[in-house]
Amino acid sequence: MPGFSNTRRLDIEWGHCDPAGIVFNPRFFEFFDWSTALLVEAALAMPKLAMIDAYGLVGIPLVDTRASFATPCRFGDSVEIVSTVVEVKRTSFAVRHRLLKGETLSVEGHEVRVWAGRDAAHPERLKGKAIPDDVRARLMPAET
Amino acid sequence: MPGFSNTRRLDIEWGHCDPAGIVFNPRFFEFFDWSTALLVEAALAMPKLAMIDAYGLVGIPLVDTRASFATPCRFGDSVEIVSTVVEVKRTSFAVRHRLLKGETLSVEGHEVRVWAGRDAAHPERLKGKAIPDDVRARLMPAET
Amino acid sequence: MPGFSNTRRLDIEWGHCDPAGIVFNPRFFEFFDWSTALLVEAALAMPKLAMIDAYGLVGIPLVDTRASFATPCRFGDSVEIVSTVVEVKRTSFAVRHRLLKGETLSVEGHEVRVWAGRDAAHPERLKGKAIPDDVRARLMPAET
Amino acid sequence: MPGFSNTRRLDIEWGHCDPAGIVFNPRFFEFFDWSTALLVEAALAMPKLAMIDAYGLVGIPLVDTRASFATPCRFGDSVEIVSTVVEVKRTSFAVRHRLLKGETLSVEGHEVRVWAGRDAAHPERLKGKAIPDDVRARLMPAET
Repeated sequence: MPGFSNTRRLDIEWGHCDPAGIVFNPRFFEFFDWSTALLVEAALAMPKLAMIDAYGLVGIPLVDTRASFATPCRFGDSVEIVSTVVEVKRTSFAVRHRLLKGETLSVEGHEVRVWAGRDAAHPERLKGKAIPDDVRARLMPAET
Repeated sequence: MPGFSNTRRLDIEWGHCDPAGIVFNPRFFEFFDWSTALLVEAALAMPKLAMIDAYGLVGIPLVDTRASFATPCRFGDSVEIVSTVVEVKRTSFAVRHRLLKGETLSVEGHEVRVWAGRDAAHPERLKGKAIPDDVRARLMPAET
Repeated sequence: MPGFSNTRRLDIEWGHCDPAGIVFNPRFFEFFDWSTALLVEAALAMPKLAMIDAYGLVGIPLVDTRASFATPCRFGDSVEIVSTVVEVKRTSFAVRHRLLKGETLSVEGHEVRVWAGRDAAHPERLKGKAIPDDVRARLMPAET
Repeated sequence: MPGFSNTRRLDIEWGHCDPAGIVFNPRFFEFFDWSTALLVEAALAMPKLAMIDAYGLVGIPLVDTRASFATPCRFGDSVEIVSTVVEVKRTSFAVRHRLLKGETLSVEGHEVRVWAGRDAAHPERLKGKAIPDDVRARLMPAET
C-alpha cells in the first residue's frame, strides 16, 4: 500500500532540452531528486536542512534508481510530478515518481534512498542509519 | 556475450558535487550519456552527427535506464567509465556502464537506447527504426 | 527608463549547490536564462515557442553577459528574481536581473540578447534580425 | 603583463547543447569554472582540495564575471580553452578565458575570484583572505 505522496508542477525550460528538442535525460533525475526532497519535507513537515540537523544526517543519497521514458517532454510543456513513498525498510526507503503531461505518463522513475549519517569509525564515509519510528510513521502512515 | 566496449577517463569536478561533497546523482547520467555517444562513435568509426545524418536519425534516445551507487565519488577523484554493448534488439540496444575508482566499482549503469527517426505520419514524434545490419555487426561483433 | 519587468520566485535546490554549500555559479546563468524567457513571454503575452514561430526566430541567444555575486545563496533559500528590460536596440535588447534574498541583493546580472533568425545565405548560422515595432513597444513601453 | 596560463581541450557534448543546437550558455560558465580550477592547480602544482586544506580556504568563489559570445559552439566541436591570470589583488585575482574553435574565438570570459576562508566571527560566512606571497608569485610570476 503506497505511503505519503506529494505532487508538484514544473515547466520544461529551454535549457532542459537537447538538440533533438526534448528533455536531456539527466534532467529528469534532477527533477526527481528535488521531488524527493519536497516529498520528505512535506512528510516530515520540516525543511531538508532542518531534517539533516534534527536527525544527524549527511543527506539521503541514492543507492539505486531506474526510469522508463514513454513520451518525450519538450520545451514549453507544463508537467506534473507525483512522488509517492512505496516502501520503507530499516535504513532505506523507496520513492516512485510519475511525470505526467496532462493524463499521459511521460516518465516513471523509482529511487531507493538511504537515511545516511557519517560512519563514526570513518567520518569521510556515509553510513546507513536506522530510520526513526516517527519518520517511518510519516513516510508510510498506512502501515503503522 | 558482451559486444563493443569503450573506456574513457573522467575527472570529477567541483561543480559535479553537491553539499555532501559527493557527485550529484544526475551527473552520472550525464557522464553515461556521453559515454554512450563515444561508444557508438567508436563502434561505427564516425562522429555522432555524421551517424545521425548517415542513418536518418533524430538521435538515440533513452527508453529505459537504471543505476546502482556503491561508493560515492568526490571532487578530485579521477575515474574510468567502461561502457559495453550488452544487447542489440531490432530497434534498440543496451549498454552497461561501469564507473570505477581504481579497482573499486563506484556506479553501475544500464541503458536501453532506441535507434530513432521521425515518424513519417507525425514528424514531431520520434519512432524506432530497424538497426541496420552493418550497425548491428559493429555494436555486437561476437554474434555475427 | 526601465522597460517591461517580470518577477519570479525560485527555491534553491540541493543540486544547485556545490561542496562549499553555496549555489554553483553557472546555475545563476541558468536561472537568468529562464527568467529572460519568462520576461519575454510575459511582455509578448505568448509562449517562447509561439514567439519563435511567429517571428521566424531560431532563438534569442546571448551575446554578452555579466554578473556580480554579493551574497551567496544556499540550499533552502527562497529567492526572488526581478528581470527588467533596460535597453532595446535595432537587433538586440538588454535585460537586468536582480536576485534577492528577502531585501538583500544576492546576485545582479546583465544580459544582451539578439533577436536571431537563420542567415539566408548560410542557414547553419544565426543572424540578428530587426526587432519588430510591436515587440519593441512591448519590451520598452515607456519609450514608445 | 599576463600571468600564469593553462590550456585544455574540451569536446562539446550533445547534452551541452540546447534546442537551437548550440551550447546552452550556462555551460560555458561551468567550463570556465573548471578551467580556473585547473589553472590554479597547475600554478600551485597541487590539487584544489590540497590547496583548500593547505591555505585554510573554503574555496575560491566568483565575485564578478562576464562573457562575450562571438561564434556559437555546436555538438561535435572540439574546442580549446586558454585561461590566463590577468591580475592579482590583495584578496582576489582575475582570470581571462578564451574559448577557441581552431583559430576562431568563440567565447571570451573574465572572472574575479576571491581567496576565501570562513569569517571567524560568522563561520557560516565566507571572507576574503590575503593571498599569500608564494601563491601570488606563482599566479603572476612576471610581477615578482
